[in-house]
Amino acid sequence: MIENTTRIRVRYADTDQMGFAYYANYLVWFEVGRTEMLRASGLLYAELEKAGVALPVLEAHCKYRKSARYDQMLRVVSRLKEMPRASLRIDYEIFDETDQLLAEGYTTHTFINGEGRPVRPPQVFTAKMREFFSAK
Amino acid sequence: MIENTTRIRVRYADTDQMGFAYYANYLVWFEVGRTEMLRASGLLYAELEKAGVALPVLEAHCKYRKSARYDQMLRVVSRLKEMPRASLRIDYEIFDETDQLLAEGYTTHTFINGEGRPVRPPQVFTAKMREFFSAK
Amino acid sequence: MIENTTRIRVRYADTDQMGFAYYANYLVWFEVGRTEMLRASGLLYAELEKAGVALPVLEAHCKYRKSARYDQMLRVVSRLKEMPRASLRIDYEIFDETDQLLAEGYTTHTFINGEGRPVRPPQVFTAKMREFFSAK
Amino acid sequence: MIENTTRIRVRYADTDQMGFAYYANYLVWFEVGRTEMLRASGLLYAELEKAGVALPVLEAHCKYRKSARYDQMLRVVSRLKEMPRASLRIDYEIFDETDQLLAEGYTTHTFINGEGRPVRPPQVFTAKMREFFSAK
Repeated sequence: MIENTTRIRVRYADTDQMGFAYYANYLVWFEVGRTEMLRASGLLYAELEKAGVALPVLEAHCKYRKSARYDQMLRVVSRLKEMPRASLRIDYEIFDETDQLLAEGYTTHTFINGEGRPVRPPQVFTAKMREFFSAK
Repeated sequence: MIENTTRIRVRYADTDQMGFAYYANYLVWFEVGRTEMLRASGLLYAELEKAGVALPVLEAHCKYRKSARYDQMLRVVSRLKEMPRASLRIDYEIFDETDQLLAEGYTTHTFINGEGRPVRPPQVFTAKMREFFSAK
Repeated sequence: MIENTTRIRVRYADTDQMGFAYYANYLVWFEVGRTEMLRASGLLYAELEKAGVALPVLEAHCKYRKSARYDQMLRVVSRLKEMPRASLRIDYEIFDETDQLLAEGYTTHTFINGEGRPVRPPQVFTAKMREFFSAK
Repeated sequence: MIENTTRIRVRYADTDQMGFAYYANYLVWFEVGRTEMLRASGLLYAELEKAGVALPVLEAHCKYRKSARYDQMLRVVSRLKEMPRASLRIDYEIFDETDQLLAEGYTTHTFINGEGRPVRPPQVFTAKMREFFSAK
């Protein structure tokens, strides 16, 4: 498993007139979480794209348990629990400063090339993933 | 069942460097869809809030089938399939101009009052809903 | 002069916890306004990009006079007052349903090619602009 | 003068299909900059709002010099150059990792109460500001 924790401050731009963070922003926080998880694993998503491969989202899910509020410092925990193959799934949990679970969810992704066709993950990605998952 | 179709143009702001609409924006389009579905049913969400009741999202799900692109005129179909009780669920489908299904998903909601406590749906809401669902 | 009026409904996503539309969204509404102004003039911005030319923003300005609120139907008036040359400037006014001026501003733009270099506006653009400005 | 430097990573959500950060996001980064400048000065914007005072934007300006790109770590420098009175102005500069100036701009603000009426800045704010500006 690969696991990463990232901290994100709730911006005023994220709030809505209910006084909470607007629900679509959690998906943005998921994106920040998975980017930082990849970075911490030695993989820059920006490098994948330069290699001609993108990782679009196939599916996104979020369960909202407690509202995030302006200026809170959130803790986003991202987990890649299984060795990615044609597709991959990342799980997320978002906590507030008092360690209360605010939201949990997941995204699934596939690899596509510049023409939008599904492709196998690039060699550098698979090699790196094997480092993390072979030990199990 | 209540069903509504709303048209939304993909903005430049919605795109990302993959050349598609960023995945969190679909949840914004779902919001527009359900607001317009309520409006078409004779219920203004803004009025619900003025009555001291809000409808926060408990859960959101989206399956991305085909990418939405800049300047496409999307068709968002929102459906309330079951009489709302303590919570309600709305289903969405998003189509492009050629009637291809781009995405489908749902949101679930509950009613809360100004203090964030769960409350029963306001009388005006329930009465209006009964009009639509009693005929079945 | 080219002038266009576009209607935009304030979304819940646009609001912030002050209960108004968040200030950066006005720039998004300016974008919608100028896209629709170009469309009404017979020029699709999407076509310009397919021709390898983009119109990035050099400068943006907005004066906020009165707050836009959730669910208001805004009227965005976009004006191209002078024949565009190397750069162009578009002026905007945003009104609410009672014709009160909520905001006014402008953006300036230049033409760049795929490598990000400044280029002359494409022939099709200049020809179209001349139709509007030669009569003066 | 009060000056603060804040670091912000460009998110995928911030990009558009031109491959740069969308222009409205710079105003969001300005917001983060001024929030952190206030925090570093011992003033939480969240506390101001709890005291019943908000600081809406009257005017925003941004000059875009060079495009911000995905995954860059930006440096936002915010400056309050003059003692705030009925209104205040904050200046911003945004740099990339190589210290190139990407954008510069300003926002002006005024104080309003819960009914949206202009009010004098709260005592705690003025006292704190005097600490910074009286020495000059």
